[in-house]
Amino acid sequence: MTPIVEPHPDFRTRVQASFSRQAFMTTLGASLQLMEPGEVHIQLLFSKHLAQQHGYMHAGAIAAVADSANGYAALTLAPADAEVLAVEFKINLMAPASAPRFLARGRVLRAGRRLSVCLAEVAAVNGPDQVIATMLSTISIRPA
Amino acid sequence: MTPIVEPHPDFRTRVQASFSRQAFMTTLGASLQLMEPGEVHIQLLFSKHLAQQHGYMHAGAIAAVADSANGYAALTLAPADAEVLAVEFKINLMAPASAPRFLARGRVLRAGRRLSVCLAEVAAVNGPDQVIATMLSTISIRPA
Amino acid sequence: MTPIVEPHPDFRTRVQASFSRQAFMTTLGASLQLMEPGEVHIQLLFSKHLAQQHGYMHAGAIAAVADSANGYAALTLAPADAEVLAVEFKINLMAPASAPRFLARGRVLRAGRRLSVCLAEVAAVNGPDQVIATMLSTISIRPA
Amino acid sequence: MTPIVEPHPDFRTRVQASFSRQAFMTTLGASLQLMEPGEVHIQLLFSKHLAQQHGYMHAGAIAAVADSANGYAALTLAPADAEVLAVEFKINLMAPASAPRFLARGRVLRAGRRLSVCLAEVAAVNGPDQVIATMLSTISIRPA
Repeated sequence: MTPIVEPHPDFRTRVQASFSRQAFMTTLGASLQLMEPGEVHIQLLFSKHLAQQHGYMHAGAIAAVADSANGYAALTLAPADAEVLAVEFKINLMAPASAPRFLARGRVLRAGRRLSVCLAEVAAVNGPDQVIATMLSTISIRPA
Repeated sequence: MTPIVEPHPDFRTRVQASFSRQAFMTTLGASLQLMEPGEVHIQLLFSKHLAQQHGYMHAGAIAAVADSANGYAALTLAPADAEVLAVEFKINLMAPASAPRFLARGRVLRAGRRLSVCLAEVAAVNGPDQVIATMLSTISIRPA
Repeated sequence: MTPIVEPHPDFRTRVQASFSRQAFMTTLGASLQLMEPGEVHIQLLFSKHLAQQHGYMHAGAIAAVADSANGYAALTLAPADAEVLAVEFKINLMAPASAPRFLARGRVLRAGRRLSVCLAEVAAVNGPDQVIATMLSTISIRPA
Repeated sequence: MTPIVEPHPDFRTRVQASFSRQAFMTTLGASLQLMEPGEVHIQLLFSKHLAQQHGYMHAGAIAAVADSANGYAALTLAPADAEVLAVEFKINLMAPASAPRFLARGRVLRAGRRLSVCLAEVAAVNGPDQVIATMLSTISIRPA
């Protein structure tokens, strides 16, 4: 579904500025990897400090980067003075999160004036990609 | 919906042992507050290290404690040799997470042999409770 | 979570008028059973025309009445000139839908100006109630 | 994500036999349009008997065909003696369902032994396709 709006020329600056204020991304060791119109990738490195009881990455850590990837994907297509806020999301955890590196790829399915819908996949990067989680999110677009 | 199984006598020990192995809970500063048959509460204290771009707690941190509360609520009613794994969850973020303390209260709606369904509410605790998030989860029950 | 707004005095008339225009509810044989501030119940009678491959009620029929119950629960607390529209919903199907009668009970968790969040349970009514499904919905509130 | 199993040679016969037993699909006027390994399409024609209060197709009717498309997509990759049952689904309704014809396209994201995860998009077919809804489902795979 083609988004109906053109990205603002400064969208990368806005995404980077907002991401750098998300202290939780720093705590997780997450980093921005790609910012394109309607698509943002965030990398998460494995850390035992982010593990659940079996030593895999906790679903909450995986959900955090997928949520941010979807929110920033929506921000790339939002008006210049807008900010984004997750209304809700749903995530399916399809395989254990055991890999040295993960990539959350958020993409806009529908860019609206008030609400956007985004889909993220989280891939375990360890040789060939394996998608370990899928998130479907509703994002609120509001004047800053 | 009344769960159909009796909790194993050692359920508190099992929940505590598993929780203490979830390194991510330590990283978040989360702690177990209540373990009853079909219900588990986890506390999360506000920390600026867990914040999103506006200074509120990141949805991923809120989701992490709600996910663990639901998983351990399911574990209280699971067979003695079972372990739990989140298959998927959906969370609605209903108000900004800005309070000194949060309580994620996970409850079993249906205790199954293979799958359990749990509902968690996350309350901002700051004078009177305010529910800021609701999570509906599907939990897989598997032999350890 | 206590809704923050008072219902409009005519809320029952508005819910009934809107429900009677939902032709799909007539097709399903569904009927309004309760309209209170923040809560609406819709009844669905078993019919083999609404069945899936095993003879139980199809998840889509169950979802339809739960979706309408949540939407109308939101409408009871919306401004007089507003209308409601489901943004998204998630439903857990917890037991086979095999009973002569079902009751979808929608309740408002958060009544907002632009978005409301509602939770419905669908009970199989056949002697003692059994909750067979739970739905968590996001509802958009818009000027009519 | 490539499904890990080969479809059974008779998978089309099995999908068709099960679909023809879903009386609700007949009630809705829905029909099978495509059955390939890991992918099933179901068509829904507009009918005023399936409408909500504004004359668009009711979310429950849209959800019903998306749910069946995802379930049958999972069935194409399930063992010969298995049957499928929706555990839960989440649907985002992204645009009003106003078109003469809709196509629900279900695809398997992960084919498991006990649980499969599927993603469906529902397109309004009226000249160029417009995706009006997206559904993410968890499907249980069980011995018949």
